[in-house]
Amino acid sequence: MDLADLTPDLTTFLGKAAYVQLMIFENASRVVATAPTTEAKTILSDVAGFALAKHQGLTEEIERHGGDAARIMEPFAREVDAFQRMTQGHDWFESVTTCYLAAGFLNDFFLRLAGGLSTSALPRILAILEAESGENLIAKELLSAIEGNPRLAARLALWGRRLVGDTMLIARWTLGTTENHDSDEARIEPVFTELIAAHTRRMDALGLTA
Amino acid sequence: MDLADLTPDLTTFLGKAAYVQLMIFENASRVVATAPTTEAKTILSDVAGFALAKHQGLTEEIERHGGDAARIMEPFAREVDAFQRMTQGHDWFESVTTCYLAAGFLNDFFLRLAGGLSTSALPRILAILEAESGENLIAKELLSAIEGNPRLAARLALWGRRLVGDTMLIARWTLGTTENHDSDEARIEPVFTELIAAHTRRMDALGLTA
Repeated sequence: MDLADLTPDLTTFLGKAAYVQLMIFENASRVVATAPTTEAKTILSDVAGFALAKHQGLTEEIERHGGDAARIMEPFAREVDAFQRMTQGHDWFESVTTCYLAAGFLNDFFLRLAGGLSTSALPRILAILEAESGENLIAKELLSAIEGNPRLAARLALWGRRLVGDTMLIARWTLGTTENHDSDEARIEPVFTELIAAHTRRMDALGLTA
Repeated sequence: MDLADLTPDLTTFLGKAAYVQLMIFENASRVVATAPTTEAKTILSDVAGFALAKHQGLTEEIERHGGDAARIMEPFAREVDAFQRMTQGHDWFESVTTCYLAAGFLNDFFLRLAGGLSTSALPRILAILEAESGENLIAKELLSAIEGNPRLAARLALWGRRLVGDTMLIARWTLGTTENHDSDEARIEPVFTELIAAHTRRMDALGLTA
């Protein structure tokens, strides 16, 4: 089972992936700017840098294929911006949780989806998507806030459960379709089951129930 | 005339410079997140990346000397955060102008100040501070907004004049002092005159009167 038939064409893939990484970068930057401690700022600025590096790698790839990055990302901005607004969180901890869970899910998803691309650029694209994202750094930051604060833990568990729904929708939007919708769903389902299992492991790492 | 006598010790210099670059990064990230077009987002995310690279280069330098970056930056956070709040601007264009003018001034200032450090790390530190900051990218972005919009130009000219005062104060705060305050002022004045001349050239590049 794979997503090959549902993988968008290379340009669409790169445009969506690049704009999603830009959003992940923006989210991480926002929590840098509002971080309560200098230490948190320092850690989260590394996370922002990792997402920015992915964004830049992907836009370079677009330009390598002769495209204009801004123009190619443009049609996808509205959908991704709406997702960003819905998932920005009500305070700093929810926003950091979004940086951890939504970014983690989307990083997994795009890496998985890239496997369906048929292009000689695949090794380069995989290298960009597989690069460090700082997930463990955010988990450590969140864990130290959650420990000994059951009320915060309960709130973030709720937030994490809400996030996964919105994140699956934006991932679903990235996929193409074939003429056989039943077969599409049969292909998508096991992949999403895996992605949700990874999401649950991320929640577990914080001691939260998914 | 130089600032050698007024240059803080290496650790203080690196801590202040690293935290100032983090602030510049945060300001650039904020205008990425609120940019009106995907093209502006793409350009400004490069600018954010340049500041982040300087911040990271400087924190690595702190760690190379055995320091903990967050702990060393901590005492400078309050002053720089206050500067950041005062200069954040009332809308997107003012914020971008801050990214252009305040960052430009501070980049010049720290580069100049670094000349007074006596350390074998100087070549590395200079390389970090001299690296690309994306100043021309921001100028181009602002220029295209100002052209044909005299009202915006007048507002940003006013903002630029206000900014330079606050920016000089934060630069002044970075300097040490000796016991001879008259002599300190005599050393500082010509340097600030040069920095203000560079500020005026930045304003000119936008067609604004400093």
